[in-house]
Amino acid sequence: MMMDEDVEQASLLSFNDSRPRAFPSMRSKTYSPLIFRILRRLNVRVLSIILLICFGAIFFMGASTSPIILFVFTVCIISFLLSLYLTKWVLAKDEGPPEMVQISDAIRDGAEGFFRTQYSTISKMAILLAFVILCIYLFRSLTPQQEAAGLGRAMSAYITVAAFLLGALCSGIAGYVGMWVSVRANVRVSSAARRSAREALQIAVRAGGFSALVVVGMAVIGIAILYSTFYVLLGVGDSPGSMSVNDLPLLLVGYGFGASFVALFAQLGGGIYTKGADVGADLVGKVEQGIPEDDPRNPAVIADLVGDNVGDCAARGADLFESIAAEIISAMILGGTMAKKCKIEDPSGFILFPLVVHSFDLVISSIGILSIKGTRNASVKSPVEDPMAVLQKGYSLTIILAVLTFGASTRWLLYTEQAPSAWFSFALCGLVGIITAYAFVWISKYYTDYKHEPVRTLALASSTGHGTNIIAGVSLGLESTALPVLVISVAIISAYWLGNTSGLVDENGIPTGGLFGTAVATMGMLSTAAYVLTMDMFGPIADNAGGIVEMSQQPESVREITDLLDAVGNTTKATTKGFAIGSAALASFLLFSAYMDEVSAFASVSFKEVDIAIPEVFVGGLLGSMLIFLFSAWACAAVGRTAQEVVNEVRRQFIERPGIMEYKEKPDYSRCVAIVASAALREMIKPGALAIASPIVVGLVFRILGYYTGQPLLGAKVVASMLMFATVCGILMALFLNTAGGAWDNAKKYIETGALGGKGSEAHKAAVTGDTVGDPFKDTAGPSIHVLIKMLATITLVMAPVFL
Amino acid sequence: MMMDEDVEQASLLSFNDSRPRAFPSMRSKTYSPLIFRILRRLNVRVLSIILLICFGAIFFMGASTSPIILFVFTVCIISFLLSLYLTKWVLAKDEGPPEMVQISDAIRDGAEGFFRTQYSTISKMAILLAFVILCIYLFRSLTPQQEAAGLGRAMSAYITVAAFLLGALCSGIAGYVGMWVSVRANVRVSSAARRSAREALQIAVRAGGFSALVVVGMAVIGIAILYSTFYVLLGVGDSPGSMSVNDLPLLLVGYGFGASFVALFAQLGGGIYTKGADVGADLVGKVEQGIPEDDPRNPAVIADLVGDNVGDCAARGADLFESIAAEIISAMILGGTMAKKCKIEDPSGFILFPLVVHSFDLVISSIGILSIKGTRNASVKSPVEDPMAVLQKGYSLTIILAVLTFGASTRWLLYTEQAPSAWFSFALCGLVGIITAYAFVWISKYYTDYKHEPVRTLALASSTGHGTNIIAGVSLGLESTALPVLVISVAIISAYWLGNTSGLVDENGIPTGGLFGTAVATMGMLSTAAYVLTMDMFGPIADNAGGIVEMSQQPESVREITDLLDAVGNTTKATTKGFAIGSAALASFLLFSAYMDEVSAFASVSFKEVDIAIPEVFVGGLLGSMLIFLFSAWACAAVGRTAQEVVNEVRRQFIERPGIMEYKEKPDYSRCVAIVASAALREMIKPGALAIASPIVVGLVFRILGYYTGQPLLGAKVVASMLMFATVCGILMALFLNTAGGAWDNAKKYIETGALGGKGSEAHKAAVTGDTVGDPFKDTAGPSIHVLIKMLATITLVMAPVFL
Repeated sequence: MMMDEDVEQASLLSFNDSRPRAFPSMRSKTYSPLIFRILRRLNVRVLSIILLICFGAIFFMGASTSPIILFVFTVCIISFLLSLYLTKWVLAKDEGPPEMVQISDAIRDGAEGFFRTQYSTISKMAILLAFVILCIYLFRSLTPQQEAAGLGRAMSAYITVAAFLLGALCSGIAGYVGMWVSVRANVRVSSAARRSAREALQIAVRAGGFSALVVVGMAVIGIAILYSTFYVLLGVGDSPGSMSVNDLPLLLVGYGFGASFVALFAQLGGGIYTKGADVGADLVGKVEQGIPEDDPRNPAVIADLVGDNVGDCAARGADLFESIAAEIISAMILGGTMAKKCKIEDPSGFILFPLVVHSFDLVISSIGILSIKGTRNASVKSPVEDPMAVLQKGYSLTIILAVLTFGASTRWLLYTEQAPSAWFSFALCGLVGIITAYAFVWISKYYTDYKHEPVRTLALASSTGHGTNIIAGVSLGLESTALPVLVISVAIISAYWLGNTSGLVDENGIPTGGLFGTAVATMGMLSTAAYVLTMDMFGPIADNAGGIVEMSQQPESVREITDLLDAVGNTTKATTKGFAIGSAALASFLLFSAYMDEVSAFASVSFKEVDIAIPEVFVGGLLGSMLIFLFSAWACAAVGRTAQEVVNEVRRQFIERPGIMEYKEKPDYSRCVAIVASAALREMIKPGALAIASPIVVGLVFRILGYYTGQPLLGAKVVASMLMFATVCGILMALFLNTAGGAWDNAKKYIETGALGGKGSEAHKAAVTGDTVGDPFKDTAGPSIHVLIKMLATITLVMAPVFL
Repeated sequence: MMMDEDVEQASLLSFNDSRPRAFPSMRSKTYSPLIFRILRRLNVRVLSIILLICFGAIFFMGASTSPIILFVFTVCIISFLLSLYLTKWVLAKDEGPPEMVQISDAIRDGAEGFFRTQYSTISKMAILLAFVILCIYLFRSLTPQQEAAGLGRAMSAYITVAAFLLGALCSGIAGYVGMWVSVRANVRVSSAARRSAREALQIAVRAGGFSALVVVGMAVIGIAILYSTFYVLLGVGDSPGSMSVNDLPLLLVGYGFGASFVALFAQLGGGIYTKGADVGADLVGKVEQGIPEDDPRNPAVIADLVGDNVGDCAARGADLFESIAAEIISAMILGGTMAKKCKIEDPSGFILFPLVVHSFDLVISSIGILSIKGTRNASVKSPVEDPMAVLQKGYSLTIILAVLTFGASTRWLLYTEQAPSAWFSFALCGLVGIITAYAFVWISKYYTDYKHEPVRTLALASSTGHGTNIIAGVSLGLESTALPVLVISVAIISAYWLGNTSGLVDENGIPTGGLFGTAVATMGMLSTAAYVLTMDMFGPIADNAGGIVEMSQQPESVREITDLLDAVGNTTKATTKGFAIGSAALASFLLFSAYMDEVSAFASVSFKEVDIAIPEVFVGGLLGSMLIFLFSAWACAAVGRTAQEVVNEVRRQFIERPGIMEYKEKPDYSRCVAIVASAALREMIKPGALAIASPIVVGLVFRILGYYTGQPLLGAKVVASMLMFATVCGILMALFLNTAGGAWDNAKKYIETGALGGKGSEAHKAAVTGDTVGDPFKDTAGPSIHVLIKMLATITLVMAPVFL
């Protein structure tokens, strides 16, 4: 394996001295991707000049496009500067005693090693796919609008491929940034936990905030740069025959596809890594041997801690980047389409609205992040502070600000003389989105927090055995889909209705604002994305800090602090997933209409409906739903297989080195790291390839079938129905998997607080089984599905010409 | 509880003597429903005269309708006579030693007691619903065709309600018959297993064959009687203004709805009963105490054995009855619609085709059942004969005959001069259906039989713990959806294409045979239904026989025979479920088009497409899929809760009566029976009510919303999309649940053959956990879902006027 040299050092951890054990120094050269290394070698002056030129060029293009773009650029750059400040602040904290540093170094080496191998595989696949796209676009026909605009085939092909590659690159950087900060913050949180709970919380939040600002800022600035580049390059609006600004956002789809592509593999590879290691470690360590979680005697413990970084941090960074990018692009497309239909004179407000919403998102989330102080509020008397309450306070502040800035943005950008009160309807749509987000967070909390009924019932089911625990967890997960679906149904219908009654009408007087209303609601939902991502990133950092504290055998009081943070992290992680699913549902619905518009444009035939009463279209739906089941199956099976390999390896080590259990022999951590890494890389290919290949294959097969049975557009229709059924089924499956997993995890934690017999009881054993089953559900298959949904939506958009 | 007196006797089982234990005689008066008791009290001559008059009336009506109906009547009556012969043959077998008889009596009492209470609840609900339907129909408008035919509101209401009640009654009788024979055959199979494996097999097959012939025959003759009654009553075809024969089948929908209604509650109540008892018994008995399955020391063992009869036999009888009825009615409706469009002069061939197919089904399945001999083929040399091979041989024979008779029926009934080769296209459609059925059986076998890779991999995953076993099982189940979906997709498209190219065209020359082609394929699939139902009924009888052998402490050699039969029963049960799901998918698709036709007729507006690009319609889809998830959740949770009650009761008995484990004290079987019965009755209401209420509520809400937002037919469209998404999602969910459950069960059985450590090993414990999780999947939620799908289809048809 390529990993061997990196993890070799982990195996040097000395283990043969008695308590307290010290690990020999093993700090190795940290890994940086090529691009960072080149930048670092440059002279500072040269670098500054290059940066200045870049900024100058960006601002020049922005200025020639629209003042709104200038605003977006400025906010993004300020938030990058703020994120630099946050890093400096986090890195300035102490790393604690050497034994902590050594563990942290082992984790960092493992994570960086896996990241390198994983992303080299992903980038090879991305380049291959870019080549395929290039070929398709070079041979495809153009839409009448594109031809009129003088956009040649080659140009269109290069634009799409460049956008795809840029999206893939940015998605990769987003993942790297998430991991970079988490492998550095974890040990600092552990160290701070020795001093105060509040300081530890603050470090974790600011570290999470750093990557959240970078991820969101990069998504926004990337799209803004691409948009203004295309604007300038294609001379939009300069001459009467040139391309209309309304059609510009469609060219950005490649960016979203690139981002989804990388995020899917990042999430799959990372998810398989983290949960394969976790399940394997738990099954032998906790269930068979009865040693605590993250115990240094467990040979799989380093692999488990590495997994938190590559799975939760790196993958979630890429994932949220992709969510925001997809949502911005789909809203821009719909804004452009609507502006065109209503013949609005200056459509840039409608098109650029999502970028402004996310610029404000950066501002208000920064305020929310900075509002969490390092010292406790003196007025709170309780001895132990609930970290959830602190985070929730910051979230409430952010939400209040979001309502205000969202209202202001709608008034600024969506005011048009054709319908003077339309902006207010759209502001209400935004409010619908914000309320939806809040409801999603609340529902996830209700089903996964052990303060509420469902998890307590689940814990009670554990007392009658493994079987009833699993049955109760599966039922809980299946049931938890109901409320979110009702909420999202109400949100879609009410936002659509608000948009439709906004007063915007096309030339025939038919209301056209409905879909854009849904888009605005989606933006409202994501208008606090950076803060939510911060809370999400907080989870794995706290988890890792807990692992380091446990492994370096800190006193009980320190462990209590990190355990508390870890439990909160579980809840925030579950809520973010609900949030991501909700936005994926809305974004897919938007991209779906963009797809129908694009097919109409290419085929020059109206394509307004997808009629499921046609057998082939119904079959497309069957295949789409089946895709979700098969994808989940392969993702879960991959974790199961990897965990089995880990279990066998850990058992082997315990048998061959009986001294491990008495701290007399050193477990071989590196072998577990290598096994998990190689398994994760191998296993991520199959589900990923399924996701990419199936819409293309289905589209082509039915295109051919349609040709022979005389049904025009059959391929496009079947793909559309496949996409919609996959979206619906995917939403439900993801909700099921995420909630069931989170609930099992917290049912176990609830029993560990002493309920129903506490740690070591039969109920606890059953709960641990539930927890291991929930791991691949909530951290591998579940979060991959919403990426899958959006990737299906973008791949059909990019590949639309193939189906015609 | 109402059960108490019935189960009191079970508690009399004497248990305080040492081995071999004898249970005191406890044969009680057997329970018969009221109708049977009345019949029994009548003088034989009076009865004969009444029967003769009935037959005469039936034949007279048949003769005035069509000679085809006469053929159907004759075949059905012959097959009833044959089934009487089979019962006599089975009942003539000896019941074995008294200890077997006593156990069998306890089982029979428990089963009959539960059946009585359950069906009295179901019949109350059915009468309530009949009243609701009556009110709706009395106030609804009529279709123009109905008005033209002079069919008044009151007439239409009475016809629908009468059909509903008749369907419900027949479904109930089908369930009763299934249970009646199984509680009598089980002990005879046990007794025969002491003599020869082949004889035991033959008794189980013939007992299953009896109920299969009754169930299928009743479905066919019931519809035929209703059809000819309506024909005579409404004077179809007599005068130019009278009702067209093409519209007649729509009046039968109530029959299908009544059948589905009863089948749903029978399946839910029976499924919760059988699996609540099974899981509870296993969790304490096998996992905690390590005593074998069906050990007499387990207080829940009688409840478990009772469950096999009420869950598997009674529920499956009602379920298959409903499947066949729904499929016949939907095909008749489509046949009528097509005949009308093509202006075929004598449409009765097209309309009555499904009845003829199932008449032949009765004939060929009887041949298949009788082909299984009681003595072994002397040429087979192997010491142990594989019972699966014997059943498979009978199945192959039946399939070959089905191909021949199906071809003959198409030539006889579907030949029309307008398209002389159409019958051949339809014969090919039937072939597609038969191949589909065969493929489904093969795929189910591949995923659930331990001779093949998937179950072996699952067993291997058990060796690394409970967690990996569950993960592997869930993945296996999710993955197993892929192949059936591909098969059914190919079947739908190819049958539709064959139908469309059959040469049948409407007045504008547009091909119209497509949907009827799909219907013919469904009939092809179900053309061996009686034989498949026989194999299915075989399973629980063999299972029960095994339980009786175990409880009465027979020698090892006898147990081996019943174990072998039981394992085969598991596989045949899994294959029947695949079969039922496949036909449910096709039948729903057909009923869906019938629904669209009906809405068109009522609203006098063309209703040809369901466009999922409309947000409300998309939301309908979301809600439909969610319904499946929520229904599965509640069904599984009900089993979990019931099992927890059983576990606590069994634990209590083991603690309070420590002598049980040494055979010194008698367990209180009756308390477990009472607990399970009361829990099952309570728990079946919630999911059942959800299934019935949600399409009506959704339809009404969107009808009102459509009224206020100016969208005509919105309620009907949203319900249509709800139905389609629920069908697709339900197919996948049912496949997942059935296959995962079957695979877990057989992985456990594989380990019990000695693989991976055999009985008592850690792998075996993990496999038992998987088995208990799989129980509610495969026997409660899974088989309820396909009934749910068809009930949704029929309820929307019956309630269509409410949504307009």
